[in-house]
Amino acid sequence: MKQRADFAGLDVNDALAPLRDQFFLEEGLIYLDGNSLGAMPRITPNRVREVVEHEWGQGLIRSWNTAGWIELSACVGDKIARLIGARPGEVVAVDSTSVNLFKVLAAAIQIAQRRDLQRTHIISEASNFPTDLYIAQGLAQLLQGQIEVHAVERADVLASVSRKTAVLMLTHVNYRTGAMWDMAAVTAAAQAQGALVVWDLAHSAGAVEVDLHAANADFAIGCGYKYLNGGPGAPAFVWMHPRHSAQAQQPLAGWLGHAAPFAFSPDYTPAAGIARFVCGTPPVISLAALECGVDSVLSAQSAGGIAAIRKKSTALTQAFIDQIESRCASFGLELVSPRQAHLRGSQVCFSHSNAFPIMQALIARGVVGDFRAPNILRFGFTPLYTRFVDVFDAVEVLCEILSTQSWQQARFQKRQAVT
Amino acid sequence: MKQRADFAGLDVNDALAPLRDQFFLEEGLIYLDGNSLGAMPRITPNRVREVVEHEWGQGLIRSWNTAGWIELSACVGDKIARLIGARPGEVVAVDSTSVNLFKVLAAAIQIAQRRDLQRTHIISEASNFPTDLYIAQGLAQLLQGQIEVHAVERADVLASVSRKTAVLMLTHVNYRTGAMWDMAAVTAAAQAQGALVVWDLAHSAGAVEVDLHAANADFAIGCGYKYLNGGPGAPAFVWMHPRHSAQAQQPLAGWLGHAAPFAFSPDYTPAAGIARFVCGTPPVISLAALECGVDSVLSAQSAGGIAAIRKKSTALTQAFIDQIESRCASFGLELVSPRQAHLRGSQVCFSHSNAFPIMQALIARGVVGDFRAPNILRFGFTPLYTRFVDVFDAVEVLCEILSTQSWQQARFQKRQAVT
Repeated sequence: MKQRADFAGLDVNDALAPLRDQFFLEEGLIYLDGNSLGAMPRITPNRVREVVEHEWGQGLIRSWNTAGWIELSACVGDKIARLIGARPGEVVAVDSTSVNLFKVLAAAIQIAQRRDLQRTHIISEASNFPTDLYIAQGLAQLLQGQIEVHAVERADVLASVSRKTAVLMLTHVNYRTGAMWDMAAVTAAAQAQGALVVWDLAHSAGAVEVDLHAANADFAIGCGYKYLNGGPGAPAFVWMHPRHSAQAQQPLAGWLGHAAPFAFSPDYTPAAGIARFVCGTPPVISLAALECGVDSVLSAQSAGGIAAIRKKSTALTQAFIDQIESRCASFGLELVSPRQAHLRGSQVCFSHSNAFPIMQALIARGVVGDFRAPNILRFGFTPLYTRFVDVFDAVEVLCEILSTQSWQQARFQKRQAVT
Repeated sequence: MKQRADFAGLDVNDALAPLRDQFFLEEGLIYLDGNSLGAMPRITPNRVREVVEHEWGQGLIRSWNTAGWIELSACVGDKIARLIGARPGEVVAVDSTSVNLFKVLAAAIQIAQRRDLQRTHIISEASNFPTDLYIAQGLAQLLQGQIEVHAVERADVLASVSRKTAVLMLTHVNYRTGAMWDMAAVTAAAQAQGALVVWDLAHSAGAVEVDLHAANADFAIGCGYKYLNGGPGAPAFVWMHPRHSAQAQQPLAGWLGHAAPFAFSPDYTPAAGIARFVCGTPPVISLAALECGVDSVLSAQSAGGIAAIRKKSTALTQAFIDQIESRCASFGLELVSPRQAHLRGSQVCFSHSNAFPIMQALIARGVVGDFRAPNILRFGFTPLYTRFVDVFDAVEVLCEILSTQSWQQARFQKRQAVT
């Protein structure tokens, strides 16, 4: 049986370990929920204060130019691009993941239908994060029958892509199980059927290797407040392959996506490329915090970047699975996440019939993960700040809770968490 | 001729004058651009720091409940409701003005067409703020010919509303001229033709009296960073009349607008009432700053509230017009804003053939207004922090610039401002 010292040894040899100091994490807390809300970089409070007090308070309206607010969405987008295999000028950080998904879905459907009007289906996975399905449903409702959303079982997704498919819309890493699609293979298979492919990178960006160009994806969107550590409700991001730049039309045609926003022309002319996916004025304070979060991920560059992050993520999740299965297997925990590391994102989920009170008990003991209905214990691993000893300690607490059944005493607080 | 002491006297007798201390305003700066970006309330930096360091940094994911983040959009919305004649539970603070306009336009068109499929027109004013027209155009483009956008001259707006009109979409106070519609009269006239009426309150909320219920409006949206002092790119707000609660469907059907967001059901069921207009996760840090800004306006309650703000606004704009016309009328300035106070919002615009360099010269002298192409000098008056002596001093600087033609030496900085 492995000892805590074995895990401590892994931390000593971990090139990413020093990066943990970038984050504020309360002493004694084991935070395994960075896939819901990433931890706060220590640089963020000062940067936010600077934006509020200096740029806004003193600079006022002048800061749109003097502090570069007007370029901020593109500037943060360029930084995110480096984490997802996109090129400079291809990503903007704006709006929410849901709003950005609406934009790219509408754009992708129009492109697909310009090629072939018979393509009326959006295919997705029934266990996709609900907002993705809702957004597709909302678009279909607006288009009154021109589009049908088919949310099928995961195993049936590829077989469901047909000559009627306009868009295949998938979340790269499943929010509930951590199961990860082979982006390149799935994209190629769907495109071979003439479909466009939209990827939601909410649980991928900053945690696993993503290469949108290598995968030849069509559109992608993602979240700023999970592994990018951008803060609660941080702006999201959006990417499109440059082959769509000329023809992509997105319906949220706001003034900051106009080719000449300050000409105040009454007619909409989209800006070139991804800039047309900007809509209204972005929330500058939250966007500045997002930039700090993205910088915290980019700081891993010298220690191997995303490849090193992914390698550590795999080691952390594997260690967690192994440790649980060797220590608490008899207590009714069942692995829900893929056992094979290359099929798994940066999280591990176990099912248990008492998952909810067990998670409450864990949180009360300082091990913060997530409960996902009906019976999932979800643990996220952010390699930038999660240590191998955290894996050991978390499992120790979990085993004790299970073996003493102390979760029965856990306060049943109402708790909702944002994925 | 009035002297500075006359204006100082008005300040002494102004019940709102003490509220200026709520804001950080650099010594010597005359800020007449609060209709583009409101000044920073002094309480904002501390509140933002608390959200970042305490709620996010320490509370992490738990703050969705413990710090009330999950209710924040509704809570800030309730505060905004008090400023626009809406009731508690009728307003949410989310997304951007542009995104919210898309939601309400789509919802309003569906309601109109459910009554009568022949109603296919969106009528608006050609001189409306461009993003409003763009958003309508984007929706029309998406709906491929089902909808037509007719942007007509201001004088022709009401005559253009017909049995073919689904929605009349207007901005209450024009961004460029400050001209204000009679909301109740226009709404009634359009509704008499069977149209629904959507109001953009971007240049109204917090500055002029708005009573959405008294006007019997159908939908309204508005901006958080102008007279509400919410900070750069602050979230916007959205309202609908409760008579539409049951049937209004908005296409940006995100998970936080679901009836049970944490059930993670694959099918979208809209939340009751305005809550369905929430889409993705809101930018909490920016939203917290917006709350401070709204509180700064609500603090006028004891001094007479919006009625007192409007009264002072009218006095400020009138004094500015009078002072300019008596001091610099001969220098080619021409009033663009309505001369009658009840037709004017909280801004005053003059045209001048050299408007751009004149505004540059004003800004260089510490009088910050806005240039609006092609020839408009725009001055916004925020009664919470603009003093009568500011009116006097601003006109003195303007007269000196005009009489000495010193604007010819003004540095022609590229300057863009966000409306």
